[in-house]
Amino acid sequence: MVLPEELAVSHPDTALPISLRRGSEIPLAVQLADALRDAAATGHLRGGDRLPSTRALAGRLGVSRTVTSAAYEQLHAEGWIAGRHGSGTYVTTSPPADRPTDDTIPGEVREQEILLELTPGVPWAEGLDKSAWRRAWRAAADSAPTTRENRAGLPDYRAAIAEHLLRHRGLAVGTDSVLATGGTTAAVVELAVAVLAPGEVVAVEEPGYQRAVQSFRRAGLQVVGVPVDGEGLRPDLVPAGVRAVYCSPAHQYPMGSRMSASRRVDLVGRARAEGMLLIEDDYDGELRFDVAPLPLLAALAPDVVVHLGTTSKILTPALGVGWMVAPPSVTAAVLEYRDRSGTRPSPAGQRVTIELARAGDLGRHLRKLRRELFQRRSMLSTALTAAGVPLLGDDAGAHLVVPFDSAETELARLAAAEKRGIRLDGLARHFAGTPTAYGAAIGYAGCSREALDGALDILVDLLRREPEHKSPVG
Amino acid sequence: MVLPEELAVSHPDTALPISLRRGSEIPLAVQLADALRDAAATGHLRGGDRLPSTRALAGRLGVSRTVTSAAYEQLHAEGWIAGRHGSGTYVTTSPPADRPTDDTIPGEVREQEILLELTPGVPWAEGLDKSAWRRAWRAAADSAPTTRENRAGLPDYRAAIAEHLLRHRGLAVGTDSVLATGGTTAAVVELAVAVLAPGEVVAVEEPGYQRAVQSFRRAGLQVVGVPVDGEGLRPDLVPAGVRAVYCSPAHQYPMGSRMSASRRVDLVGRARAEGMLLIEDDYDGELRFDVAPLPLLAALAPDVVVHLGTTSKILTPALGVGWMVAPPSVTAAVLEYRDRSGTRPSPAGQRVTIELARAGDLGRHLRKLRRELFQRRSMLSTALTAAGVPLLGDDAGAHLVVPFDSAETELARLAAAEKRGIRLDGLARHFAGTPTAYGAAIGYAGCSREALDGALDILVDLLRREPEHKSPVG
Repeated sequence: MVLPEELAVSHPDTALPISLRRGSEIPLAVQLADALRDAAATGHLRGGDRLPSTRALAGRLGVSRTVTSAAYEQLHAEGWIAGRHGSGTYVTTSPPADRPTDDTIPGEVREQEILLELTPGVPWAEGLDKSAWRRAWRAAADSAPTTRENRAGLPDYRAAIAEHLLRHRGLAVGTDSVLATGGTTAAVVELAVAVLAPGEVVAVEEPGYQRAVQSFRRAGLQVVGVPVDGEGLRPDLVPAGVRAVYCSPAHQYPMGSRMSASRRVDLVGRARAEGMLLIEDDYDGELRFDVAPLPLLAALAPDVVVHLGTTSKILTPALGVGWMVAPPSVTAAVLEYRDRSGTRPSPAGQRVTIELARAGDLGRHLRKLRRELFQRRSMLSTALTAAGVPLLGDDAGAHLVVPFDSAETELARLAAAEKRGIRLDGLARHFAGTPTAYGAAIGYAGCSREALDGALDILVDLLRREPEHKSPVG
Repeated sequence: MVLPEELAVSHPDTALPISLRRGSEIPLAVQLADALRDAAATGHLRGGDRLPSTRALAGRLGVSRTVTSAAYEQLHAEGWIAGRHGSGTYVTTSPPADRPTDDTIPGEVREQEILLELTPGVPWAEGLDKSAWRRAWRAAADSAPTTRENRAGLPDYRAAIAEHLLRHRGLAVGTDSVLATGGTTAAVVELAVAVLAPGEVVAVEEPGYQRAVQSFRRAGLQVVGVPVDGEGLRPDLVPAGVRAVYCSPAHQYPMGSRMSASRRVDLVGRARAEGMLLIEDDYDGELRFDVAPLPLLAALAPDVVVHLGTTSKILTPALGVGWMVAPPSVTAAVLEYRDRSGTRPSPAGQRVTIELARAGDLGRHLRKLRRELFQRRSMLSTALTAAGVPLLGDDAGAHLVVPFDSAETELARLAAAEKRGIRLDGLARHFAGTPTAYGAAIGYAGCSREALDGALDILVDLLRREPEHKSPVG
């Protein structure tokens, strides 16, 4: 079917309710993308339906083509529409949620167009020494299959992590205090269900890690955002009556700041005085290359802090393992939950991690990773700074942030980057509420150094100036 | 401290509220165990506190010593108390929930006393060919660490499971229809959170798998029990208005019956007519040795059935992987949940499973496992039947059931078994509501054949006649 003309009319009472509100806090392009996505999700638009060209739709809606282009690019990236924008854009036959996984779908949209993914959170897995990896799996092959449940994790794994925390994070804990997890996100789900109770309030960084926000909300918790700045989360703005605070003090996700020592003390003080639980997501904790790390919240206040770490970023997500260090009451609640539900973190990835640690390859890889990321970051920040592009965030971790002045700029620049085969991550999507900051988060770990080097000129060009086709919004 | 005298007084208004209600549906021993457990959990009893002897406590409470012995044995088994019962029984310094895991605690209670665990659900991991296991891990070592998320599972894993389902379960599905899971219990948690909504009603088998019940309840769902008999769950007794039915048609857990063909058709018919989702836990599905299996619910009605399987029982829980085959709307909801929460099944165990399947070792092990379990079951059932012990359940799977006439008998016989170093599983704990059937579920996969053979005489002795110290309840 051809898209009905009504789509192009900006009245709310038409068949396809595309109604854009000017002056809203929500950018027009976001409103348009939302409306089209809803139409596809609810069946008002079906697979194979053709969309008008960005130019035609812009004309009918009375908005600039920047708005329609950005909306189409977004839906393109999400997999809702396919084809080049302009004429020939159509709704895909299976919306993203129906797809088994990106990996099994011929990458019509992503693979052909995006040459370089510079999104945060992707590790430098190609840097993992192949022979060390093979050696670890082969060593793990010698351990017999077990019938034990090991709800807390394999004893050797817990010991290896205790050692890792001491060496690389300055945290001295006994093996018994370490629980294996399925990774940070899996641990958040467990905490949300096993430790927190529906209706309780969890404070999160704003902007922050939306997967944690989703898991909290899914468990029936109330989420309140707390602003972050160059010193991380502001403890003074955590509302009273909050049950838990979720934060990433080592390298705030996504803004890249590190929580200052005084704020750590303040936050711990409030937690103790008011009975809050602090969930310390040690995001990028091992990846500092400038200075000695500040003490972990878990080191300052083991009585109120749940510390979460993962091998996903420092080794590979293929292992699917992480860890939790928590007060005994929290540990007990998590273990009880695992026992009652019959769940536990998969032991297979723990075995490989044990062997990587035993052979010294975990430490070696970390040192190599820090050197590599330091060089990549220097390369990137030197080029951007020389071109006058402002940067946010500490000199650490695996991503940096370029601030923009508006949502329109963010959408337009990300769309422009995609046109040139580079995917960047926008800041706006990291807000639980209305976005108040815009920009691009650029992850530099997931690609090869050569690819990053080859993309530097394009990145500078994209981030230095206004996108070419930027036009005033009608 | 010495336990205060008040404990022994059966008044509810004393410091330790041990109040036993006669004529209650809850057996006195269960009431007593509950009260003592609560006292320990809430700190009224502390680590190191001594308990009165079973004889003394029985006298003071005005109950038979069978009651106090059974209660102590239960708490003993759970790890709340230690020492031999009689004088010298004391509360452990760390209650079970505070313990990291059974494996890391010197097995003061379990290891020294229990020589043989005959509980269901423990696989025959020692039967797994060591060289096949090593070969699989070594082959998995050659696959590179990935940065892909693979929320649906590794493509090769999904293909291997599709092949397994076709060969061993007669289910023809495309690779795209198979999702990797973290095992059956992990899949139940995902379904409870991602597919079902708080307040909805889930019907479960009564008795049935209480870990599923716990996960449903934890997600805010209402649970209703549906009776099972020799033909499995009774579809005619599933209440109207139920959103989902959780069942184990292949080998009902714990009763061991197989759902008859006509009930499968009836259940599917109701599900389709009334919009119910059927969650088919294929417990012991691969482990039939008498007859060809009946068609899976998933084969009869792929549009309304979520089929769950796992490697835990047919290989080892060390892999931590399972699978789900579900209608597209369910698959989409689970994948969306994984995407939003950032969770996914660990890929490491999937890799090993891929290699076990590729080399033919999964099929070989299954054939060997069926032979072994058939022989064990024959050995056990021959010995018990010859002694006049009644048996329940199909000639299949990895456990059988000996029915008892009362809760008292169950508690007493399980306690008597523990005294002789054998742990059996009682039926009463498998009820979501008030137990209506009593007995012992005897798992015969988790030990060596020699150990099982050596225990036959004791088992016959324990199950044939009344426990020695059985005395009338006061």
